[in-house]
Amino acid sequence: MKKYSEMTKEELQTEVAELKKQYKKYQDMDLQLDMSRGKPCTEQLDLSMGMMDVLNSSVDLRCDDGTDCRNYGVLTGIQEARELIGDMMENHPDNIIIYGNSSLNVMFDTVSRAMTQGIMGNTPWCKLDTVKFLCPVPGYDRHFAITEYFGIEMIPVPTNEEGPDMDMVEELVSSDESIKGIWCVPKYANPSGYSYSDYTVRRFARLKPAAKDFRIFWDNAYGVHHLYDDKQDYLVEILAECKKAGNPDLVYKFASTSKITFPGSGIAALATSLNNLDDIKNQLKNQTIGHDKVNQLRHVRFFGDIHGLTEHMRKHADIIRPKFEAVEEILDNNLEGLDIGTWTKPNGGYFICFNAMEGCAKEIISMAKKAGVKMTEAGATWPYHKDPHDSDIRIAPTYPPLSELKTAAELFSLCVKLVSAKKILEKMN
Amino acid sequence: MKKYSEMTKEELQTEVAELKKQYKKYQDMDLQLDMSRGKPCTEQLDLSMGMMDVLNSSVDLRCDDGTDCRNYGVLTGIQEARELIGDMMENHPDNIIIYGNSSLNVMFDTVSRAMTQGIMGNTPWCKLDTVKFLCPVPGYDRHFAITEYFGIEMIPVPTNEEGPDMDMVEELVSSDESIKGIWCVPKYANPSGYSYSDYTVRRFARLKPAAKDFRIFWDNAYGVHHLYDDKQDYLVEILAECKKAGNPDLVYKFASTSKITFPGSGIAALATSLNNLDDIKNQLKNQTIGHDKVNQLRHVRFFGDIHGLTEHMRKHADIIRPKFEAVEEILDNNLEGLDIGTWTKPNGGYFICFNAMEGCAKEIISMAKKAGVKMTEAGATWPYHKDPHDSDIRIAPTYPPLSELKTAAELFSLCVKLVSAKKILEKMN
Repeated sequence: MKKYSEMTKEELQTEVAELKKQYKKYQDMDLQLDMSRGKPCTEQLDLSMGMMDVLNSSVDLRCDDGTDCRNYGVLTGIQEARELIGDMMENHPDNIIIYGNSSLNVMFDTVSRAMTQGIMGNTPWCKLDTVKFLCPVPGYDRHFAITEYFGIEMIPVPTNEEGPDMDMVEELVSSDESIKGIWCVPKYANPSGYSYSDYTVRRFARLKPAAKDFRIFWDNAYGVHHLYDDKQDYLVEILAECKKAGNPDLVYKFASTSKITFPGSGIAALATSLNNLDDIKNQLKNQTIGHDKVNQLRHVRFFGDIHGLTEHMRKHADIIRPKFEAVEEILDNNLEGLDIGTWTKPNGGYFICFNAMEGCAKEIISMAKKAGVKMTEAGATWPYHKDPHDSDIRIAPTYPPLSELKTAAELFSLCVKLVSAKKILEKMN
Repeated sequence: MKKYSEMTKEELQTEVAELKKQYKKYQDMDLQLDMSRGKPCTEQLDLSMGMMDVLNSSVDLRCDDGTDCRNYGVLTGIQEARELIGDMMENHPDNIIIYGNSSLNVMFDTVSRAMTQGIMGNTPWCKLDTVKFLCPVPGYDRHFAITEYFGIEMIPVPTNEEGPDMDMVEELVSSDESIKGIWCVPKYANPSGYSYSDYTVRRFARLKPAAKDFRIFWDNAYGVHHLYDDKQDYLVEILAECKKAGNPDLVYKFASTSKITFPGSGIAALATSLNNLDDIKNQLKNQTIGHDKVNQLRHVRFFGDIHGLTEHMRKHADIIRPKFEAVEEILDNNLEGLDIGTWTKPNGGYFICFNAMEGCAKEIISMAKKAGVKMTEAGATWPYHKDPHDSDIRIAPTYPPLSELKTAAELFSLCVKLVSAKKILEKMN
């Protein structure tokens, strides 16, 4: 196919006219499709229905150590859950707190605690004039919402296939004491789907922050969310790496079973150094007597061990892999060679990131919406919802049924072509 | 029996010698009993085992409105849970947010939000030099721990059988803008077991706070926790009363099913005005995508409706009523007429409050501990753990088996007598 940029004005006008006709056809179909959020589909949820059977009224709800999960107590989570999630997070159970149903909530609480109490005896952030976070972009909108909510200034940091621009991260973190954190989704990142390289992780572990209370917010949300058995990204374990680098307290690591069992009814966890853990426990004991131990036990009994969980994730992959592949194939077929966008081809996670021509993302998403396909809103992957290039689009292929997804991806490709062609034409005038 | 205060020195010395002998016997028994925390006992937990059966892999986990409880979403809780808990709290479902597993956590978050964001556009409390809370005493230690944690100054307010000293509350709240809240356990209070009178509630609803962001933290933890079918306290509903008084936004009301189903695996809720609710939702959406809907559904399916929940509470009462009565009987038998202490006889809740002679509580609790009976630590019912009279002792009769409880109560009575007799003797010297 000929690159749009190499087409003549007349060729482009013909193309636009043809695309408009096709778009009209989609409009007439009254579609109602959704590629906006990273939600598991019904078939994925069905995989965990067995979890509803492992506990019943004839089952003893006591832990191995005799703790009755039905009663108060156990602030950091039951031991068997810490072991299972420890295996999943590649951390020692002693370094883990099992929380409630949402790792987002754990991250929120972690920032909130730093605001009102400070980290390990440092000045509470709410007492400082300026607090800044680095925000690798494109990134996760809900991360940025937390820091925005607390009035924390966000500095975008570009990323590539290896992770964030570490030259920039090192430079900023070591020179500016008001930089207190960085949001990272290091594996199968939201939204690129790519994972940080070994080199990137090692540079993270070796940061020399100007601020004593600088922390890496390492949201390993997709640590076990592979699409393939043979093609899997490997992420260097950050806690171990920080310890080796003499920076044991540098990182808070988050994970959950939200996209493993049931979103909203899973268990979330934080892994960090024992020093950080003590700091957190001293706070947490004022906040709650303990999280939902019955649900922790339910998860442990359902999976048995990490092998059970791994097998379970293969079933998820079998359901969503065809969806990722379908979207990629449709983008390939429709857009390859036109030079009007690039897109990622991740080995795991929940997203594909589409990089449109500068200034086109909003319009593409708007056109898709008008034809009945909901995408994540433009700019969402940037702090303050402001994508300066108006270029990043997050595609979430997991939730819609395959046939609907294909239609949505076709329409999306069409919108990309139409908006891009019109953009190039505009520039010609 | 003769009052200790009317005994001669010799009589008292004989009494002390005799009591010491008895105490020695208890010490030799190597007891390990616990009357320290308001925990349901195993038989109470067994009442809710049926809740483990209502959801299984053959059950449809969708709400009446079609929401799949297994997936993300529904920030304020599923409609049927809001209805059930609304009936329980005597509030309209629209005024309710269903949270996670802990109302303590909801209260913590509510204070935390006021600290960092402020209430309804008012200055965040963390930006103010002084923030104060009124703390009716004796009160709940975990309430006081939250305000202490956030550096909020606590002012004790005496209570009697009608509730807090409302003259003092009105005077302070209307004159001091730095007073931002008051902790209340209005029904079967922790630890007195008494409920606020109608007059007290009406005066609360009619407060004229100097601070626009003053809120009543109304922890109705024991709203349906009656001990008797015929002798039940009735509490005027505070939201309705505030609305009538032209103060609709004055109160945050909290409740949970922690002592109804499983502590730690129940559901918590907040009821408040729609204005407050909007303020809270605007914050909450940054903190979480939603709480555990499957557990909400589990509760709804288990109880069916408020009648089911009421019947369930009767079964709890049948289990714990004999425990309260046993303690009261033992205190009556051992201490009545000695004039060395008073104690409450509540119609519900989880506690009996014992009022020892001034300066005796610490020593009584310490002696009980040395003989193997754990009580709530002295001072816990006061802000900063400082009971200026060293007098209040919280007795929690629900958790130990009846026979153990009786032994513990006998020993406790003995410690009260021994410490009091020695105290009076001291004064004679």
